[in-house]
Amino acid sequence: MLKKNNIKKLYLYAKTIKDKQTVIVNGWIKANRHNSTIGFIELNDGTTIKNVQLVYKSTDIFFNELSKLLIGSFLNVEGIFKRTEGKQQPFEIIIKKIVDFRSCDNDYPLQKQKHNFEFLRDIAHIRGRSNTFGAINRVRNCLAMAMHFFLQKHNFLWIHTPIITSNDAEGAGEKFKVTVNNKNFFDCDAFLTVSGQLHAESLALSFGNVYTFGPTFRAEKSHTTTHASEFWMLEPEMAFSDLKDIMKIIERLIKFCIKYVLKECKNEIDFFNNFIDNNLIEKLNNVLNNKFACVTYTKVIEILKDNAFKANFENKNIFWGMDLQTEHERFITEKIFKKPVFVVNYPKEIKAFYMRLNRDNKTVAACDLLVPEVGELVGGSQREDRYDVLKKAIEHFSDYRKLEWYLDLRKYGCCTHSGFGIGFDRFLMYITGMKNIRDVQIFPRVHGHIQY
Amino acid sequence: MLKKNNIKKLYLYAKTIKDKQTVIVNGWIKANRHNSTIGFIELNDGTTIKNVQLVYKSTDIFFNELSKLLIGSFLNVEGIFKRTEGKQQPFEIIIKKIVDFRSCDNDYPLQKQKHNFEFLRDIAHIRGRSNTFGAINRVRNCLAMAMHFFLQKHNFLWIHTPIITSNDAEGAGEKFKVTVNNKNFFDCDAFLTVSGQLHAESLALSFGNVYTFGPTFRAEKSHTTTHASEFWMLEPEMAFSDLKDIMKIIERLIKFCIKYVLKECKNEIDFFNNFIDNNLIEKLNNVLNNKFACVTYTKVIEILKDNAFKANFENKNIFWGMDLQTEHERFITEKIFKKPVFVVNYPKEIKAFYMRLNRDNKTVAACDLLVPEVGELVGGSQREDRYDVLKKAIEHFSDYRKLEWYLDLRKYGCCTHSGFGIGFDRFLMYITGMKNIRDVQIFPRVHGHIQY
Repeated sequence: MLKKNNIKKLYLYAKTIKDKQTVIVNGWIKANRHNSTIGFIELNDGTTIKNVQLVYKSTDIFFNELSKLLIGSFLNVEGIFKRTEGKQQPFEIIIKKIVDFRSCDNDYPLQKQKHNFEFLRDIAHIRGRSNTFGAINRVRNCLAMAMHFFLQKHNFLWIHTPIITSNDAEGAGEKFKVTVNNKNFFDCDAFLTVSGQLHAESLALSFGNVYTFGPTFRAEKSHTTTHASEFWMLEPEMAFSDLKDIMKIIERLIKFCIKYVLKECKNEIDFFNNFIDNNLIEKLNNVLNNKFACVTYTKVIEILKDNAFKANFENKNIFWGMDLQTEHERFITEKIFKKPVFVVNYPKEIKAFYMRLNRDNKTVAACDLLVPEVGELVGGSQREDRYDVLKKAIEHFSDYRKLEWYLDLRKYGCCTHSGFGIGFDRFLMYITGMKNIRDVQIFPRVHGHIQY
Repeated sequence: MLKKNNIKKLYLYAKTIKDKQTVIVNGWIKANRHNSTIGFIELNDGTTIKNVQLVYKSTDIFFNELSKLLIGSFLNVEGIFKRTEGKQQPFEIIIKKIVDFRSCDNDYPLQKQKHNFEFLRDIAHIRGRSNTFGAINRVRNCLAMAMHFFLQKHNFLWIHTPIITSNDAEGAGEKFKVTVNNKNFFDCDAFLTVSGQLHAESLALSFGNVYTFGPTFRAEKSHTTTHASEFWMLEPEMAFSDLKDIMKIIERLIKFCIKYVLKECKNEIDFFNNFIDNNLIEKLNNVLNNKFACVTYTKVIEILKDNAFKANFENKNIFWGMDLQTEHERFITEKIFKKPVFVVNYPKEIKAFYMRLNRDNKTVAACDLLVPEVGELVGGSQREDRYDVLKKAIEHFSDYRKLEWYLDLRKYGCCTHSGFGIGFDRFLMYITGMKNIRDVQIFPRVHGHIQY
């Protein structure tokens, strides 16, 4: 007897299961229809997008009980495996015994009709059972593990940088303050981290390759489809590596993850391609099959100037030193290169203090990876490893003293090192074609909203 | 030529490397001694506890430069691989070319002598390069991945439960409050999570097996060796599973992780056994080689009463309904069972509201795993799955309304489900023999202290 088989495995090993073998399944009812002689239940346990079909008959003593079970009810049955070649599903299970069940109230919000994503956001505690959120969370798990596998294979150590911190890596963006009874709990103001990078550098300068992968926070009040107050970020940091080295790793990491998800979550990606974005698989294959391009910021500005009229940008004021807007980034990757492209060597004024100053004294060794439909997916840089140059960049900061330990790292055998960050939830959106970050996080936190 | 070989790999593949082959190594100088004709450098790159020995000679044009490099300096050299059978190290590298180097200031705090852990805590940004913290962080990575591997193999999905939350799973322990400019950012008070369990239950009731693995927080002012304000916790949650099922999984998970670390981090565990706890490997093997015992709380109270005089507890007032202290837990696992032991069915008054009430109406279906030298390592329970019973348990809470979604889960096809939590840093302490949580977290956060 197969005990507590999950439905994913049942499909995976269907060919090796003998006809009439007894199997046990658990799950929640997605559909239950019957006439006076026979009934059919679609059962799903969240391990796969596919339901398993259960069959019961009017001659069964439990016919009445089963026929009354509403959508959303829990059911645990023992049954006979029966191959059904030629039918829509490859097998069905003839129920022999009800091991356990739990009925569902009739105000269950996930009835059979299609629901829009706004409605589902309001029932975040239930929406894991919907097809879309089921698929999202399986891909989320798969993508997170793909990142781990790739980095572990390349001798990166997973480190846990602190969430509560007294400094702010970017110097930008509102921060959440952390207190107890409105008082400081530590010896100074404490905030939720916006990036683990500075701490990760300390460890890269001890271990070579490291990565931090955990939650980060932004207290921005923007209500866009790509911003959340809390999201996971992957931040690898590599000693002995320059900008070119990390660009190689970024390209290999992105391609590895996409390939891995396409293989391990084929059903889910097919689902997203069918119901969310018909262009999805083509888009992902385009990433896989092309070598990423590379262009300097200065060249990008030239291209944008040349095309400003034709492209009809909202922001037409193109000049060297400007911050690129998403419309500009998308134009470059979608219309000019038609594939992912690294933009390198940004003006130092629009990038963070820790990026390494180039010889021109005007630009820093930074790279942003732009991808079609999204714009920036990855941001990285070589880190300023020269004590004097870094000191000059930070000594006017008001919280300069809090960065002394960071400056210290440049005194004790510092070396060329570089790192990058990938917003995990945004990468998940990219891979699934989902358009709103609130629809890929199961309990999203955005300004003014913390229902669950 | 072997490019950018890390030192761990160099040792791993030493037997396949040909004599006189050119290799390139990066790392930091641990020792540099020389006489007038020859010099020796011990180089380490953080990938292994072992240094590689570099040799340079007075006939080399870079002899003077190299001989002046202090401990802590960064060095990147090309050299000739030379087998040295019979010597302490299996090979050495004869330096042919200095590719890059960066000297270290002479106030480098990690000189050759032994440092105590308190001193090292004050140089947290540097201590990753010490032998102990090098080993800790490699075991940390290994243990975290062992957990992932075990759970992924058993079809658990890694989910990301929110860090910012409006409710408090345990109802116990001070919480950190999250604000922006001292005002609420969300629609109600917001706190840092003490546990992802309640949210994980929502997903277990959609996907079957899930786990959350991320940071959790306690704003307790206790300055003990086992408490930190921020620590990682692993919390698996399983639908279709009762207390007995999770006890089986806990035992298998603990044993798998220990076995995995013993195999993958052999050098590190040997180091801890030699320098931190001479009993470590014996202790870990004792866990591996014994089936965990199981005893009820009621029986534990009987045993403690019978032994109160002999054991000379600090807390001698033993009665049914009391919370077990660490001294009691350690007595049970060390003196009575001499191996890990599950204590089950605790009085409902001393356990959390979400644990399933047993038929006796006095105890709940909870299990704590006690292990020698530590006491409680894992806490788990079957969850209350009956709407009316749970409602009665929470309706007097002041923040009852915030738990309505949690109660809701019992209306819509709820089922038997159970889960448990393992403090990751405490498990890491157990596996390494380290005695203070501040010495296993690279940047620990404790009351009044947030230097880095």
